[in-house]
Amino acid sequence: MKLKSIKVAVPASVSNVGCGFDVMGFAVDIICDEITVKLTNKKEIKISKILGDNGKLPLDVEKNTCGKAVKEILDDLNLDVGLDIKIKKVIGFGSGLGSSAASAVAGVFAVNKLLNLKLSKKQLLNYALKGEEVASKAIHADNVAPCLYGGFVLIRGYNPVDIINIKAPKNLFCTIIHPQIEIKTSEARKILPKNIPLKKAVTQWGNVGGLIAGLLTNDIELIGRSVHDEVAEPRRAKLIPGFDEIKKAALNSGAVACSISGSGPAIFAFSNNLKTASIIGSAMKNAASINGLRSKVYVSKVNASGPKVI
Amino acid sequence: MKLKSIKVAVPASVSNVGCGFDVMGFAVDIICDEITVKLTNKKEIKISKILGDNGKLPLDVEKNTCGKAVKEILDDLNLDVGLDIKIKKVIGFGSGLGSSAASAVAGVFAVNKLLNLKLSKKQLLNYALKGEEVASKAIHADNVAPCLYGGFVLIRGYNPVDIINIKAPKNLFCTIIHPQIEIKTSEARKILPKNIPLKKAVTQWGNVGGLIAGLLTNDIELIGRSVHDEVAEPRRAKLIPGFDEIKKAALNSGAVACSISGSGPAIFAFSNNLKTASIIGSAMKNAASINGLRSKVYVSKVNASGPKVI
Repeated sequence: MKLKSIKVAVPASVSNVGCGFDVMGFAVDIICDEITVKLTNKKEIKISKILGDNGKLPLDVEKNTCGKAVKEILDDLNLDVGLDIKIKKVIGFGSGLGSSAASAVAGVFAVNKLLNLKLSKKQLLNYALKGEEVASKAIHADNVAPCLYGGFVLIRGYNPVDIINIKAPKNLFCTIIHPQIEIKTSEARKILPKNIPLKKAVTQWGNVGGLIAGLLTNDIELIGRSVHDEVAEPRRAKLIPGFDEIKKAALNSGAVACSISGSGPAIFAFSNNLKTASIIGSAMKNAASINGLRSKVYVSKVNASGPKVI
Repeated sequence: MKLKSIKVAVPASVSNVGCGFDVMGFAVDIICDEITVKLTNKKEIKISKILGDNGKLPLDVEKNTCGKAVKEILDDLNLDVGLDIKIKKVIGFGSGLGSSAASAVAGVFAVNKLLNLKLSKKQLLNYALKGEEVASKAIHADNVAPCLYGGFVLIRGYNPVDIINIKAPKNLFCTIIHPQIEIKTSEARKILPKNIPLKKAVTQWGNVGGLIAGLLTNDIELIGRSVHDEVAEPRRAKLIPGFDEIKKAALNSGAVACSISGSGPAIFAFSNNLKTASIIGSAMKNAASINGLRSKVYVSKVNASGPKVI
C-alpha cells in the first residue's frame, strides 16, 4: 500500500574532516532539514513551501536540490505521479553543515519510502548527487553520502562512486559551532589553489590514512593527530572572523582536533567524552563572541543511521 | 651475557604501495640483506666486507647506511666498543626494494641484540633513519619502518615520526618482478613535480584512505581499487622499459593491482591466492623479457615480523 504523505528528518554533516578534503565526511545527531512529501493528483512535482531560508532558496524544481533529486528519480523510473514538497531548513543554508546535500537526501529518502520503491542506498546516492549538483555545480559526495548512510564516509573515488562507510568510535564526541554568517560553497572553492606542493599533499594523505586507521581501530588520539588540514583550512580560515582564536579555545579546552566543517563557517572539534565536548562548546562560543560573532553551538555523537521518518 | 657475534637477515620492502607516496610501505618475505656483526677490541666500527654490491657501496662507516646507523647508536649511548661488520647484499641496491633501508635496519637490529641494549623499535627506527639518510639525502621512513616492524606501515607524519603498523590480510599475496637494471632513488626523485594539481591530490588521498580501510577490514578488492598512483608512477614508469606491458600482463593474469615498488625498477602486484600470484609472476617476466629486460621474480606473502637472527 502506498502512503499518501511522509515526513522525514535528515542529519547535518561535516565534510572534509580536516585532512580529507572532498573525500570524507560524517553525519551528526543534529537535524538539518525536515521535509514533508504528499501525493497529489497533478502529475507534477511542486515545492509548495520552504521555511527557514529567508526566502532565498528557489521553489523551481529544477533549481532546487531537493526538487531536482526527486525529479531525477521520477524521470529515471518513468513514474507518473504528482508530489507536493514542503521543506523546513532547520539549520539554514551556507552553514558548512551540508544543508544543500541534506535537502537532496531528504527528497530521495522520502520519495523512496512514500512510493515504496525499495531503491538501495547506492541508487538513492546517485539521485541525491544529481540534486546536490544544482547547488555546488559539481558532483561532491562528501556531505550527501554521510547524510544518507550515517557514520563516517570515505569517498574512495568517483569513477564509479566508491563509498566506504565506517562506524564511529563510541566515545567520539563532536562539538560544532555555527557562527551566524554565511559562506557560499562556490566562493569558498574559488579561493583554493589549483595546484599544491607535493610535500603538503604527502602530509595530507598521511593524515587521511591516519584518520581512517584511527576510526577503524577506535583510536581517538590517532584521529586527533590526523585531523589537520594543510590545504583548505589555511585559506578558508580567513573567511571566518576569529577562526584561530576559536580553534585555540577548542584545543585548550580538551579537543583532540578542530577544523572547519566543509567550506565553513561552521567549525567542529572532536573530544572523547560528553562533558569535555560541552566545555569545548562554551569556550568556542566565548571566543566567537569576543570576535563579534553570534553563534549556535551543538554537541553531538556521530549520527549512526542517516535519515529517518518522523 | 654479551654475545661475541651475531648474524641477522632483514626483509626487502615495497614503499609507496601505489597511492601512498612517501607514507606507506610493507615488508615481504624476501631476504634483502644479511649482515654479521662481531665484537672486536679495536674501539672502532669497521665494515670489513660487502658482498653483492659489485664493489659500489662505501666501506667508510660515515658514508655507509649500515655503518652510519650503527655509529649513531654507539655515539648516542656513549658505547666504547669495537665492531666488525660484514654485509651481504642479497638483492643488491638500486632495486626499489628498500636495499639501503635494509642495511640500516640490519645494523641497528644486530647491534641491539649483540650488545643486549633492549632498545625499542621506535628507538631503533630513529637510528636507522639517520643511517638511511646517508643514501637518500633525506629522512624517509617508508622502507625503514616496514623493514623493521614487518607488515604494512603508514607513516602518518614526521614531526615527530608517527608509525601506524598494520597487519596484512592473510590472503594477500605479492608478486614482485625485479628487472635487472638500476634506478637511483635520487634520480627518480628529481623527475617528480614540485607541485601537483589539487584534483590529483584529492584522488590520491581518497585512495590512501581506501588502502588503509582495505587492509584493516581484510578487503582485498578494496585494496585493489585503491592501489593507484596519480603522482609518481606516471613519471617513473618511463624509467622502466616496458612498464606498461608488464603492468598489463599482471592485471590480465588476475592481479587486483600493480604499481612500481618505491622508485623502481622493481614492480609489485597484489593478488588473493598463491597460484594466481605465481601465474602473475610468469606473465610479468614474459612481458619484461619481450621488452629486453632480464629479471628476477619473487612471490611472497607480506612479511609479518621484520628482521630475524639467523
